[in-house]
This record gives sequence, structure tokens and C-alpha cells, in this order.
Amino acid sequence: MIILFGVFIRYNEESSPFWIEHRKANNISSDIENDFYFRYPSFQDVHVMIFVGFGFLMTFLKRYSFGGVGFNFLIAAFGLQWALLMQGWFHSLDYSDGKIKIGVENLINADFCVAGCLIAYGAVLGKVSPVQLMVLTLFGITLFAVEEYIILNLIHARDAGGSMVIHTFGGYYGLSISWMLYRPNLSQSNRLQGSVYHSDVFAMIGTLFLWMFWPSFNSAITDHGDGQHRAAINTYLALASTVLTTVAISSLFQKHGKLDMVHIQNSTLAGGVAVGTAAEFMLMPYGSLIVGFCCGIISTLGYIYITPFMEKHLKIQDTCGIHNLHAMPGVIGGVVGAITAAAASEAVYGHEGLINTFDFEDAFKNMTPTRQGGHQAAGLCVAICFGVGGGIIVGCILRLPIWGDPADDNCFDDEPYWEITEMAH
Amino acid sequence: MIILFGVFIRYNEESSPFWIEHRKANNISSDIENDFYFRYPSFQDVHVMIFVGFGFLMTFLKRYSFGGVGFNFLIAAFGLQWALLMQGWFHSLDYSDGKIKIGVENLINADFCVAGCLIAYGAVLGKVSPVQLMVLTLFGITLFAVEEYIILNLIHARDAGGSMVIHTFGGYYGLSISWMLYRPNLSQSNRLQGSVYHSDVFAMIGTLFLWMFWPSFNSAITDHGDGQHRAAINTYLALASTVLTTVAISSLFQKHGKLDMVHIQNSTLAGGVAVGTAAEFMLMPYGSLIVGFCCGIISTLGYIYITPFMEKHLKIQDTCGIHNLHAMPGVIGGVVGAITAAAASEAVYGHEGLINTFDFEDAFKNMTPTRQGGHQAAGLCVAICFGVGGGIIVGCILRLPIWGDPADDNCFDDEPYWEITEMAH
Amino acid sequence: MIILFGVFIRYNEESSPFWIEHRKANNISSDIENDFYFRYPSFQDVHVMIFVGFGFLMTFLKRYSFGGVGFNFLIAAFGLQWALLMQGWFHSLDYSDGKIKIGVENLINADFCVAGCLIAYGAVLGKVSPVQLMVLTLFGITLFAVEEYIILNLIHARDAGGSMVIHTFGGYYGLSISWMLYRPNLSQSNRLQGSVYHSDVFAMIGTLFLWMFWPSFNSAITDHGDGQHRAAINTYLALASTVLTTVAISSLFQKHGKLDMVHIQNSTLAGGVAVGTAAEFMLMPYGSLIVGFCCGIISTLGYIYITPFMEKHLKIQDTCGIHNLHAMPGVIGGVVGAITAAAASEAVYGHEGLINTFDFEDAFKNMTPTRQGGHQAAGLCVAICFGVGGGIIVGCILRLPIWGDPADDNCFDDEPYWEITEMAH
Repeated sequence: MIILFGVFIRYNEESSPFWIEHRKANNISSDIENDFYFRYPSFQDVHVMIFVGFGFLMTFLKRYSFGGVGFNFLIAAFGLQWALLMQGWFHSLDYSDGKIKIGVENLINADFCVAGCLIAYGAVLGKVSPVQLMVLTLFGITLFAVEEYIILNLIHARDAGGSMVIHTFGGYYGLSISWMLYRPNLSQSNRLQGSVYHSDVFAMIGTLFLWMFWPSFNSAITDHGDGQHRAAINTYLALASTVLTTVAISSLFQKHGKLDMVHIQNSTLAGGVAVGTAAEFMLMPYGSLIVGFCCGIISTLGYIYITPFMEKHLKIQDTCGIHNLHAMPGVIGGVVGAITAAAASEAVYGHEGLINTFDFEDAFKNMTPTRQGGHQAAGLCVAICFGVGGGIIVGCILRLPIWGDPADDNCFDDEPYWEITEMAH
Repeated sequence: MIILFGVFIRYNEESSPFWIEHRKANNISSDIENDFYFRYPSFQDVHVMIFVGFGFLMTFLKRYSFGGVGFNFLIAAFGLQWALLMQGWFHSLDYSDGKIKIGVENLINADFCVAGCLIAYGAVLGKVSPVQLMVLTLFGITLFAVEEYIILNLIHARDAGGSMVIHTFGGYYGLSISWMLYRPNLSQSNRLQGSVYHSDVFAMIGTLFLWMFWPSFNSAITDHGDGQHRAAINTYLALASTVLTTVAISSLFQKHGKLDMVHIQNSTLAGGVAVGTAAEFMLMPYGSLIVGFCCGIISTLGYIYITPFMEKHLKIQDTCGIHNLHAMPGVIGGVVGAITAAAASEAVYGHEGLINTFDFEDAFKNMTPTRQGGHQAAGLCVAICFGVGGGIIVGCILRLPIWGDPADDNCFDDEPYWEITEMAH
Repeated sequence: MIILFGVFIRYNEESSPFWIEHRKANNISSDIENDFYFRYPSFQDVHVMIFVGFGFLMTFLKRYSFGGVGFNFLIAAFGLQWALLMQGWFHSLDYSDGKIKIGVENLINADFCVAGCLIAYGAVLGKVSPVQLMVLTLFGITLFAVEEYIILNLIHARDAGGSMVIHTFGGYYGLSISWMLYRPNLSQSNRLQGSVYHSDVFAMIGTLFLWMFWPSFNSAITDHGDGQHRAAINTYLALASTVLTTVAISSLFQKHGKLDMVHIQNSTLAGGVAVGTAAEFMLMPYGSLIVGFCCGIISTLGYIYITPFMEKHLKIQDTCGIHNLHAMPGVIGGVVGAITAAAASEAVYGHEGLINTFDFEDAFKNMTPTRQGGHQAAGLCVAICFGVGGGIIVGCILRLPIWGDPADDNCFDDEPYWEITEMAH
């Protein structure tokens, strides 16, 4: 890794002092125009989501909290280095000298790339060894970089919050792997596959940091100015709306009208996923509310009906229910994005606004919104194909008996991989 | 809600691509001048305070952690949507087309509005049903929007950190409701009205995030530039000073000189409340320290003497002690604000600075600092009246036997409203 | 404290409305150029590290969580007020009127100053009384301000992330105090000197917030623009690399290849310490990875071999292992900084870039990179001397039998200083 970085990675113009005179000559009058000040606060929020958000969301199991937060930490730290290289080769390679020039936007993209693999981790949580996770991440990042290049650069779909690129891909990648690694005797670990009171409170830390910072996630790499502003507003509204429907549905469909912590921890976030692609478009505030409203319903019902169905009939054991939190809402997000793009017009966006928002420039300056909608739909298909296909291949690799995976009655237990002190006081 | 948003809410000029040409024509040369970059980091800090800060502060009860953080999540997410509408009608309505134009400042104000209701939740924590909380929030937000309009727009008081508008109102609103909902037999739940070791550590998460981000809270909607800068410094100093006096008083007045976690969790925050109104004025660093010093004493003594007195003699059961953390410091903050405003002079603020800071423009261009002080005091009275009056009315409504409130021996227990798994390992 | 603030502390030009006309005359055209917008997001991240990061990192002991997070809160709040005064006298004194003019950069520096004392607290965690901690902090801040003045202003070493000024000083200061306060019978508290399952998860909150926000720590006071940008990138990479080596070493050197939570909680942060000085230089991305790689190895091996050795043979009882997390990586950071500075050239930095980065101006305009390297090394020596010397003196003072320190069998127990409710449900 060090050698690869030594050969390929350099600072970009905005993070190197070498370009000071150059910047002056280009009339970039002030340091505040540095991309750092546009994106760094959002980057830090995304960073918190990756490490605290995903990490603590996975501490809900009574005996797998170390593994949830600890392995999340490990694979995220590994993944972001690999992602800087892989994404760099596809997106930031400077052909004049063969170097990748990195800045804060690359760090954000690396975090995004890692998010895809952490989603996949959610499906296999507690059932794989750390070595398997490293393999899952290594291939996941690679597939992600290729898929992202195809969707964003070749197909020219827009996907600011990654509904398609991150969530749909990551969701189906994880589900396919979980399907390949099906354990028929997993019920031997049933005693450990649940939460205790305080582990559920820890998981709420993860939920809330994900929920609060999701507007930063969806706006982190959108256009400067109104683009970031609008993406944050849309996400904020969609998430608020999802919370209400999740609580309502959870209470309606449980016996005695009680709320289930699993739904509160997970389904409340589905709106942020589903608004990812369209957040930078003129979705309008009520549009965001509608998306959030629908996702709250679908995601909560998913936990109640679809996850048990998948485990029983489709042989897919989905520990964290990523199908309800990432895969389904991601697909909805892709569809919403395609519709919103196809419905765009100069009357709503203004002439320059339309070009700016959809990046109708250079090779794509003859694109129309309608055609853009088609490209969005094509992007969604690519994400699903890469997720399912990649997951099956990587799942085959992970079935090799050389990775030290835990026995069926050792699943969801920290004991095989961590030095454990006493459990209670 | 979706329909109301569809009819009324639109993006404002800074969050819509439609205005790009317009901005260029107005010489707003750079995207970095977008209000988003002035306010978004503060917005995210406030967001964390609302959801993690208030949420985890209320997890201290041994068996009501789910309710503390979960219902906080629910009513905050509901409240902010309603607040965008209510505040929009009063503050951001564009009369030319009858639409509310929203941007990041509206999101911050919605979070502020929600804070008032979450404060009130603190007084009734563990004693009401989720439906009652929704009703409390619905009316609370409405009252808040009216009260805010009267204080800020009609009376022209300044209240950047909301000592009056948020804390005084929210505090007395909650206390009045708690008074109306007095439960004479609450001692039946005594076994549950306390903390355990780890629930106190969870509550410290809430305390610390509130404490750290309070400078952002008080500076979030102050004037760009020096206004935000100064508000952050004043709040930082007041809070630091409060911590020291809280620890000193807690140790002095407890037997054996031991510290009480309740004081550390709550009273340390009183300085931030009390400096809210005056934070944007030239309070001077030593002024902030004095305010923090006094509030630490008053708030801690409040927990030791006033809360038990109120419960015994005034029939006000105040679960989180919001009288000591919000109501009293809020009133102090209003008084400090009035004094600081009345003492303002061009010698300290400069000519333009005085006009900018107090917004002596348009209809108010003949205001003097002395008169502004009077207006501040009037604003404080309005906040108290709305809090007490509104609380009594809403309390009456909540006494109707249709809301499914818990029985006396079920208070402070998650069991009636949540699916509970096992409690220990 | 209030009196000292009243006499000395005032707002600076960027936080006072008095200077509005002055700013206009100087062509500072926009409020966004206010230093507040360059530094406030980083300040808040640093603030989170100090209070939540350090605080929760020290909650890992099974019965000392209140003390870990509570006393951390107390001494940090006390320390930052004292630091504003002490650093103000040395750095921000305006000689024309004898006042200290404060702005957001002073707040960051005060937080940095406090970090030095919190590091020292890590060495004596659980073995001292709150009064002793106040004394430790009072002298620690004073020594820090003098040492910082010598290193940064007199010697003209650069130390953006404080590898030398903060970590080396704080580490040796704490170790020397711990050596002076050696308790031969500490084994009487052995039953309490360990973690339980959930206290380790709490500690991970501290670890992750320190880890995530370290890029903000190292870039908070570097030059506007590319300086902050580059420091953040370097720190991000070094930390990512440290995580991988820590996990690898922890697994290799433990029996059965299991991971140890102590290493994950602490050693993963060593890379951020070691890259502190050089983060703003052109360390290059692969250089950051190398630094992180080495530190992960050294720090983890330190926990396995050096800490037990120090306790047994050197009579230094280091509760949190600050020698492995701060002292050693700090020294490495100082050395890396000296080498990187000595290797600087105009070919890499550009002409203006070199002058800007190393501040070769005024009295130092004839400095060369090679000589700067020597100055860096001199700075490192000063930091070590101040740490060891100051620690021995303060340790002597703390041995006086007037501070109420706990008995040997009461160490690592919250009971002597806190009102404790029941421990389990």
C-alpha cells in the first residue's frame, strides 16, 4: 500500500503550497475559495457517519458489540486507503504525469466507497471472520470503483447521495454474499442473536448520528452553493417524514401497539437513502416528504414481513436487515431520481441552473432532461447487476475453507476474536 | 403535512438554481457567499444538540432510556416539520406569491422551535404517553411561533440564543403542564425513578454534546462575521465558568463532599442558557464569566432545595429539573440581555456596529439602547405569560382521559410502550 | 478568574462590531473572510475531542467511569480559562493597551493547552483526588504556556498538531508525576483495575471521536487554504494506516490471535500524534502512511511489553498507557517533523510556498530549511525537558499529604468522590 501510494498519490492544486503563484494568477483571490472550506465540514460529518454511525448501529447484538464497532473500524480504515487508489485511477488520474492528485473531495469519495462495503457487512454481521471481511472489502471497493465509473462517467447519471452507486450496490452485494454463505444451522446461535437493554441504547447512538448527518452525506459532493444547500434541505425533510411513518407503522403492526427498537434504529433512516439521487434536483420540499413517507412504510413492513420471509424461503440471512434499509430504499431512490430528472425543465431550474445541475457540458451538451431520466434508469440497472453479480462471485471465494470463519454455534459472539473481560459488574 | 408543504413551501433564492443569473447580476460573486457556508456547520451542531444532546440527557432513568431517546426523536422529527410551516407563516412568507421560501436559517429556527418542546418534555418525562407528547408538541410549536413573532418582530427584542423565546417559554410551558398533570400517587413508581451506573454514563453523552455545541446554538442565527464570532466566545466562557461553580456547590452541599451526577449532568449547562440573549452583545469576556458563575450556583442549589420544595408544596413534579436548567437561567438570561442592551453605547460598539448589532433600521431607526433594554424586558414578560398560560391550557387538554397515559405504578417504565428484550446479559 | 478576565481580556478585531468601518477601509470585503469561518468547524471538532474524546476514552475502567468523564470535564473547563490568560500573556498581548485580544484561534489554542493536561491525567487516572487534578492542571497550563512560547516564538519551530508541544510535553509531564506518586501497594485495587464489556464500548466512543476528528486537530491552526487542506489529508492517511498495523500486531502477539480492546482503543490513535508536527509540511501521502505504519507497531508493542516493564522496574504506573499513545509517538513526530523540514526545497514547495509554510519572515527571513530542521530538533528537546522537569516538581507538590488522595485500596473506584446509585438493573 505504501509503495502504491508512493508511486501514484500526490496533493492536488488546492492542497499544495506549490500552486500559490498559480492561484494568484488565476484570480482566485482568497483562501476561503479553497475547496477545503466548501467541503470539509461535510466531510467530517460523513466521517462520523462511517465510523460512529455504522459502527454503533452494529453494536445492538448482546455479545457482538466489540465486533460490530471494532471490525467496522478495521475494514473502514483499510477500505479508504484502497478506495483512494482505485477511485483515483478511474477519476482523478492526471494523464500528464500519471499521478493521482488528491484533495478533500477524494477523501469524501473514499468514505462513500467504504460505506458500500459497510452496508454489505451489515448482512453478514456476526457470521464471518475478520479475514473474510478484509476480502469482502478488497473486492467490494474494486467493484465499486468500476461500477461508479460506468454509472457516473460513461452513462452520465447523476447520483450525489449514492442511492444507486452506494446503497443499491452495497445492499445487493451484501445480500448475495449472505445467500452464498447460507448457514442452515444458524439457529444454534439463537440465544445470542438478540439485544439487551443497554446494547440497544448504544445502537441508538449510531442511528442518531447517521440520521443527523445524512443531509451532509447527500450534499457533500454536490455543486457548490445552491446545490449543497438544496440537497441538505431535501434530505432533512425526507428523514423527518420517515421517522413519523416508521413509528406509526411499527406501533400499528406490533401486538399491543408497542414500538420495536429494531424499526426505530433502522427504518427511520430509509428516507435518507431514498432521497440520495434526487436530493440535488428540484425535488421540492413536499416531494421529499412523500419519498420519506413511503420509505418509512416500506422499510418497516420489510422488517416485519420480508426479512423473515427471506430467511425462511430464500436462504438469505440478513442480520441487520440491510434489504429494508439500503437495498429497497436505494432502488426507490434510483427510480425517484430518474423521474425527477426526466421532469426537469428550464421553467423550474432556469437556463444556467439546468445546465449546472445536470452537468450538460462537453460531450453531453445536447442531453435533454428526458434522456437524462433514461440514463438514470440505466445507472440503476448497472448498480443492481454489479451488486448481485459481484456478490455471488465474492461469496464463492469466501466459501473457501481457508478464512477461519466461526462455527455455527459461535456466531454473534465476540469470544472467538476478542479478549473478553467479565460481562457484568 | 405533505399537502401543506405542497401548497406553501418552496426553496429560497440561495437554495434554488433558478436564481443563478439573478445572483450574478447582483454581484454576489462567489458560491462561498451562500448563506449555507455561513450557517451549515452551526446548523449541524444544533441538530446534534436536539437529537443526541436532549435525547441522551434524558436516558438517565434506569428503565426509561428507550423512551427518553426514542420519544425525543419522534417529537423532534414531528415538531420540525410543523415548525417550518408555523414559523414560515409568521416570518418567511413571501407576500408576492403566498409561498414560504426556506433555506438553512429556517432549518435552524425549526430546530430551535423544537427545543422549546423538548424542554417541556423534560418536566413530564416518564409520566405521559407518546400521543400526549404529540399533542404537547403540536400546541407548543404553535404557541412558540406566535410568541416568537410577538417578541422578535412586534416588540423588536433581540434574542439570538433564545434565553427568553426558547428556554423561558419552554421551561414554564413544561412546568405548567406538569402542574396540571400532578400525580399524587407517583411514589408508587419510586423504585424506577432513579439511575443506574451505566444510564448515568449515557446521560453524560447528552450533557457533553449539549455543552460543547452550545456556542453554535447561541451563534447560529446571529449576524454574519463578528456577530457569530462574539456569540461563540461568550457562550464558551460562560459554560466553562458554570462547570467550576457547579462542581464546587455540588461538593459543598452534599454530605461527605461527594459529587452528584444529576448536578454535573444538568447544572453545568445553565450558563449557556443564561448567556443566550446577551451572547451577541458586547457582554465582554468577564461578563460571560460572571453570568456563568451565578448560574452554576443558582442552578445547583435549585436541584438541592427548589425541586424537592416544588414537588412537595407546589404540586409540580419536574422529572429532569427543567426549572433549574431552563426556566430560572432563561429568566436570568432575559434580564442580563436587557441590562446589556440598555448599557450599549457607540463608544463600545462603534456607530455602524451599534446599528448592525441591534438592527436599528427601518421602523426602528430611532431606537436607543435604553429603550431597547425596555423592549427586551417586555419580551421576557411575554415569554413567561405564553409559557404559563399556554401550559395551563394544554395541560387541561392533556387531562382528558383519551390519551392513554400510563398508570401511576407504570411511570418511568419503558415496558408499556416498547418491546423489551432481556435487561442484563 | 473573573477579575483577571476583567482586567486583561477583550474581543479582537474580528469578533467586535467596533471595527466594522476599519475592516471596510482595509478592503476586507466580505464577512466570510472572518477568521471564524476558517476555523470554527475545526474548533468544534477539537472541542469534541477534548470533552467527549478524552472523556470517554477514560471511561474504560469498570468502576471509574464517572471519574473518567466527570473529572475530565472539570479540569478541561478549568484549564481552558486559565489557558486563555496564560497563553494570552505570552502570545496575544496587545502592547498598546495591555489587553489580550481573543478570537476563535485563542479558543483553539486553549483547548490544545488543556489537551496537554488531560494526557497527564491519563497516567494518574484513578489514583488522585480532584483537588490534586486541579493543582496538576494549574501548573501544567502554566508550564505549557512557557514551553510553547519558547518553542514556537523563540526557537521558531513549527508544530501545528503539537506532537512536541502537546503530546511529548503532556506525556512526560504525566509520567514523571506518576513516578513521583508511585504506590507500591496498588495491587490492593487490582479487582477494579480492569474493564467490563459495556465500559469498553463506552471507551470506543472516545476512541472514535478522537480518531475521526484528529485531522481537524492537526489542521486547526495551520495556514488558511492549502495548509489546512494538506494537514487534514496527511493526518487522515496516517491514522488509517495505524489502524491496520495495530490490528495486525495485536492479533500476532496475543495468544490465540485474539484482539485486545486496549490496543484498539489506544494504539489506533498513535499515527495522529506522530504526524502532528509534519502534517502541514509536504510529507507526501506515502510519508504519512509510513509514519502511521511505524507508530501502530511501536505503540502496540509498547502496550504489550513496555508498560508492564515500566510498572515493574521503573516504578511508573501508567493507567492509560500514555507512554505508548502520546510520549513515544510525540517524540517520533518531533523527529519526523525535523527531518521533513530539513528536506524542504523550493522545488517541492515553490518559492512563496516555502516562505509561507515555514513562516520565514521578519526576524527569520534568512532561515534555510536545513537550519529549520535543527530548530525543530531543539524544540523537541525543550518539550522533553519541560515535561520531565515540570512533572518532577509538580509531583513533589502533589505528594504533600494535604490533597485528600485516595487510599491504595480505594483507587480506580468512584465511590469516594461520587454519589453512587445501584450498579446493575
